[in-house]
Amino acid sequence: MATIRVPEVVPSPAEDCEKLMKAFEGLGTDEKAIIRVLGQRNASQRKKIKETFQQIYDKSLIDCLDSELSGDFGRAVILWAYDPPERDARLVNKALKSRKKNITELQVLVEIACASSPQHLAAVRQAYCVLFECSLEEDIISNVSLPVQKVLVSLVSSYRYDKEAVDSIIANTEAVILHDAIRAKNLEDDDLVWILSTRNIFQLRATFQCYKDNYRKSIDEDIRACGKGILESILKVVVWCTDFPERHFAEVVRASIVGLGTDEDSLTRAIVTRAEIDMMKVRGEYFNANKSSLDNAVIGDTSGDYKDFLMTLLGAKI
Amino acid sequence: MATIRVPEVVPSPAEDCEKLMKAFEGLGTDEKAIIRVLGQRNASQRKKIKETFQQIYDKSLIDCLDSELSGDFGRAVILWAYDPPERDARLVNKALKSRKKNITELQVLVEIACASSPQHLAAVRQAYCVLFECSLEEDIISNVSLPVQKVLVSLVSSYRYDKEAVDSIIANTEAVILHDAIRAKNLEDDDLVWILSTRNIFQLRATFQCYKDNYRKSIDEDIRACGKGILESILKVVVWCTDFPERHFAEVVRASIVGLGTDEDSLTRAIVTRAEIDMMKVRGEYFNANKSSLDNAVIGDTSGDYKDFLMTLLGAKI
Repeated sequence: MATIRVPEVVPSPAEDCEKLMKAFEGLGTDEKAIIRVLGQRNASQRKKIKETFQQIYDKSLIDCLDSELSGDFGRAVILWAYDPPERDARLVNKALKSRKKNITELQVLVEIACASSPQHLAAVRQAYCVLFECSLEEDIISNVSLPVQKVLVSLVSSYRYDKEAVDSIIANTEAVILHDAIRAKNLEDDDLVWILSTRNIFQLRATFQCYKDNYRKSIDEDIRACGKGILESILKVVVWCTDFPERHFAEVVRASIVGLGTDEDSLTRAIVTRAEIDMMKVRGEYFNANKSSLDNAVIGDTSGDYKDFLMTLLGAKI
Repeated sequence: MATIRVPEVVPSPAEDCEKLMKAFEGLGTDEKAIIRVLGQRNASQRKKIKETFQQIYDKSLIDCLDSELSGDFGRAVILWAYDPPERDARLVNKALKSRKKNITELQVLVEIACASSPQHLAAVRQAYCVLFECSLEEDIISNVSLPVQKVLVSLVSSYRYDKEAVDSIIANTEAVILHDAIRAKNLEDDDLVWILSTRNIFQLRATFQCYKDNYRKSIDEDIRACGKGILESILKVVVWCTDFPERHFAEVVRASIVGLGTDEDSLTRAIVTRAEIDMMKVRGEYFNANKSSLDNAVIGDTSGDYKDFLMTLLGAKI
């Protein structure tokens, strides 16, 4: 359930390109026109616009956006303009190359490994090789230390079965394996890592349910009771992204807004990456968790073209 | 360097389908006609023939081949008729479900992980999910025991960088890591497994060369000196498939033919899977290793339509 609004009659890619070029020309840039065009087109429409732009003007649309726009607004529009696999490969690379490498950064790897389709994950790995001249796994190994490294390599290497196939015996058996590992605070246990990174998400949801039924606490509560390190945080995100991705992304939005200042990069990432997937559900989950509206939170913490762009992705009329 | 001979003027898929249907009709089957058509078309041409056959006759070409042909000949033609990712997913599944699970069976997983492109490997994993309703990794875990399981899961999960990017410092450092693990007979060492399953093949070749320069023995010799178990055999195939795949496939052909009786499944697999990739080099390598011709070996150990079909894939005129 996407939030973006694609008009009923979509202009041709050539018409859209013409509007964009007009918005770039002259002294100022017409940011509103850019938002109106790109903010209301889905991924395959944006791809065609980029190809057509290159053909007509012999220029890269991304380069033009980069030279015309700036700040959080520019970064958000450019992120939105990339093909999703390239966008996610760039997000992952930025996280791996960041100095901090805390959970706010590294969780993007879990999002792509656990809250995307296996086809998309494979496409991200392919895009990563093309853009950065090494495999994603190699960059995880050289930039993240053990034991988080082991978990992340295993997660991004998965190609899960993507249809509903649940075996209740496996759910029961593997709930026990997970519980034993967590009780022993052995969160880098081979079996735990393999279960979380090879089982299909429907199976994992059933396993997590068994866990809760058998042990009266949810698996993420038990993981958090192990400690407050980065490994515990990563595994909690694995469980949330698998079990209930909209809850995870509602939490990313909340965390990006709470307190003094705003973490615009996280806010942008959550909205740009989910606007075409499950943003409607994220909005509902945000309301349930915070008793306030996600849209009002975004309006309250952002301004100008950046606000207008995010609100357009959230379905506001412009 | 493929060995198959595609005619200069290729008939349309509809013409090919007509010839195939004619070969199926009547009392007997015209095997030679089937060999002439399918044995001289590349993978994308065969794909179009299958699609066109389905459209014209509302029947699956594979099903027709299955009901018309039998024995080693039938199995070879059907294997050749599948799209390569589906073919390899089926080969891998057969290996995992076989009772024996010795090196002759399990090496097919290494071939697909180390002697194919990363795109092909991802396509095989996707096809595996579609055909067998679970991920390839799940089936490895439930059918192969540790430590071979760990190595195979890691290898099939790779998405290596596929261009030439070699870092001589990495080659030196990782030759030492590999040597230390092998010297300690710790062939399931995490670092060893990660190096073999994440580094690009050009980097690995440089690392293996460093290994030989520094320690005067090749890495595969040292691996074999560790023991004669299945893990040693698997790792030797990893090294060969990475370093010199044509040497591996020449050896598969030799082993399938040597001694009493022929291992037709292995012979078929080697020729069917490499006829469009590097069979010309495999032939050269076979000659270097055995001082006799691969073609003569195939002719000597096979007969009838099966022989004619394999020889057609090896470029013989029919």
